[in-house]
Amino acid sequence: MNYRETSLKKHGEWKGKIETVARVPVDSREALSLAYTPGVAEPCLAIHNDTEKSFELTRRWNTVPVITDGTAVLGLGDIGPEAGMPVMEGKCALFKAFGNVDAYPICLRTKDTEEIINTIKFMAGSFGGINLEDISAPRCFEIETRLKEELDIPVFHDDQHGTAIVSAAALINALKLTGKKTDAIKLVINGAGAAGIAIGRFLLKLGVKDVTLCDLKGIVCDGEEWLNPAQKQVAKITNLSHAKGKLADAMRGADVFIGVSGPHCVTKEMVRSMAEKPVLFTCANPVPEIEPEDALEAGAFIVGTGSSEHPNQINNVLVFPGLFRGALDARASTVNDEMMIAAAYGIASCVGEKELAPDYILPYAYDKSAHRAVAKAVEEAVYRTGVSKLKK
Amino acid sequence: MNYRETSLKKHGEWKGKIETVARVPVDSREALSLAYTPGVAEPCLAIHNDTEKSFELTRRWNTVPVITDGTAVLGLGDIGPEAGMPVMEGKCALFKAFGNVDAYPICLRTKDTEEIINTIKFMAGSFGGINLEDISAPRCFEIETRLKEELDIPVFHDDQHGTAIVSAAALINALKLTGKKTDAIKLVINGAGAAGIAIGRFLLKLGVKDVTLCDLKGIVCDGEEWLNPAQKQVAKITNLSHAKGKLADAMRGADVFIGVSGPHCVTKEMVRSMAEKPVLFTCANPVPEIEPEDALEAGAFIVGTGSSEHPNQINNVLVFPGLFRGALDARASTVNDEMMIAAAYGIASCVGEKELAPDYILPYAYDKSAHRAVAKAVEEAVYRTGVSKLKK
Repeated sequence: MNYRETSLKKHGEWKGKIETVARVPVDSREALSLAYTPGVAEPCLAIHNDTEKSFELTRRWNTVPVITDGTAVLGLGDIGPEAGMPVMEGKCALFKAFGNVDAYPICLRTKDTEEIINTIKFMAGSFGGINLEDISAPRCFEIETRLKEELDIPVFHDDQHGTAIVSAAALINALKLTGKKTDAIKLVINGAGAAGIAIGRFLLKLGVKDVTLCDLKGIVCDGEEWLNPAQKQVAKITNLSHAKGKLADAMRGADVFIGVSGPHCVTKEMVRSMAEKPVLFTCANPVPEIEPEDALEAGAFIVGTGSSEHPNQINNVLVFPGLFRGALDARASTVNDEMMIAAAYGIASCVGEKELAPDYILPYAYDKSAHRAVAKAVEEAVYRTGVSKLKK
Repeated sequence: MNYRETSLKKHGEWKGKIETVARVPVDSREALSLAYTPGVAEPCLAIHNDTEKSFELTRRWNTVPVITDGTAVLGLGDIGPEAGMPVMEGKCALFKAFGNVDAYPICLRTKDTEEIINTIKFMAGSFGGINLEDISAPRCFEIETRLKEELDIPVFHDDQHGTAIVSAAALINALKLTGKKTDAIKLVINGAGAAGIAIGRFLLKLGVKDVTLCDLKGIVCDGEEWLNPAQKQVAKITNLSHAKGKLADAMRGADVFIGVSGPHCVTKEMVRSMAEKPVLFTCANPVPEIEPEDALEAGAFIVGTGSSEHPNQINNVLVFPGLFRGALDARASTVNDEMMIAAAYGIASCVGEKELAPDYILPYAYDKSAHRAVAKAVEEAVYRTGVSKLKK
């Protein structure tokens, strides 16, 4: 099936993948008097007296905007806000189907960091959380950091953390199969952009000790002149042996390779140079860093990709619906590390010991029990870490 | 029934009056591949090549945000963005029920004119039109004017123009009953804020010649020192005889009184001082300028109010769903006078000659045929005035 051609046709028929519907009757004088004037004055005043009541008397408790500036959409890059909408609508449909979250797509006609931050701050009182999407680096870092500081609802940049969490879940289960210890593996990430850096940082929190990032220019090493500010920061906590060189050098002896880079930059030789039972998550889309069959032929023990057409799809659809479901249900004021770690273990736990196999390390993206497991794990983490704003 | 108490309870049970739902399946690998990656890349690229395609391949063609800053909500005033949400959600439910428009409530945490304008401009690529709501004067004037200049989708401030259009519809039918000519009546508007000024300007466009506005300080007359900038402007085109004095002076000999002011500021004596067959639209909410029974006792021929509990409810719910339905269907680039005049006559036409009576001059707010009539009239006006962006 030619997905892209069929998809274009379908989008023309659908004329929108989401829709806003009324949940209350307004078709009589009495119904209007309750849902609208004059009755509506009373819930308005109740919220005016206690803003927190907006989570009880309006849809705020369940609403999350999916916000982009259209600068890093899929693998397509900076295609603009209007052109980003089909992805954002799709994401909102997934939010609803798998997390029962009322997500709403908002594509912004500005790439200015301050303008994006302000726009989202101004809107924040209408929402229970904020999902940032497909905003290019390095602006995405400052936008997320500042919003987390200034808002008291969960803020989550899916391209960074969704990818990090699902990669971590895949790693957790892969290590069960290889029998290797988290703190003993050598792990290489290719692609030192928003996703790669977020994966690196997150896996360190998960207990991996030896993480090395690479980019087109080579190994990310503290002191290299070509590093951008975000890479400079991550260089201080990764590649502690100060290795230099190219991807091929980094991969020699590595136990795990995670690619969030580009097509076919990994060769069979590189796979052969890895440690025993090598694990490769080649997430580049639509063309992976190495074709799965080539990786397996070269001795890979486990291969995951970004595509649904191969086993072990590393798909952040497994993360965001459940993560926000749990955060909203517990009225979390933020998204913290513990919530993200809980989400990773929640996903990993959905593949039972008996099912776990090199070609089945993650649940399917459309497995509703996986999303429920994530929601439950995240909700518990919210309470455990004391970031719930619900009164006990 | 105590609407306000019951409404508060209902809002607690409803937990939101609108909801976002998915219109497409995403529950299988194939469905995901069409609605989301990899298929979604194709509609994205199609819109990237031609932004106008965002009206065909996404929900943009049918979406309108209901945007407020919470400064002039109902009769409650500046209660803040979160507290304004129950009204905005209610409005969105009405948009859907009566216009099948996907409206979405956005309450902004800023009262700054430039910040509001920018926020809306940045979001505009996600929407097919913009409904401004409950933003206090004088900022609402500049916000609407600037957005109309800078955007190529319909922008409509309902508190101004919705009120003006439904008042005009009521006037059209009232004059049929009194037998008076539009260009021969003396008309007084009490309340020279956003709504009153918009009504005055609109009725002049409709053919009324003698319009006088009043405010708490008295008759709005060119040259008065107490006038604010918006009142100064409207003073140049109203009260051409340069009458001075108070409301009682203005009402003497008037054929029509329209109140968008406050409770009980009109006395029986004032009604008695009006011309033959006096018409009063006392729209102050929740307490009208004069109780309908008092007005009728003092000789009023026709009385309309803002409340559904009396005959002739002057309710802008009759306007916005159909107006946006027509504008969206014709892919209007703006909302012009002709569209608004068409809407007024569209509403008026819904009361047949035989039904028309002093206690029945307007269709009911929940009469779906009225909304369809407005939509049709507006759609025709879009094409007639050449502001449709659809390719012929």
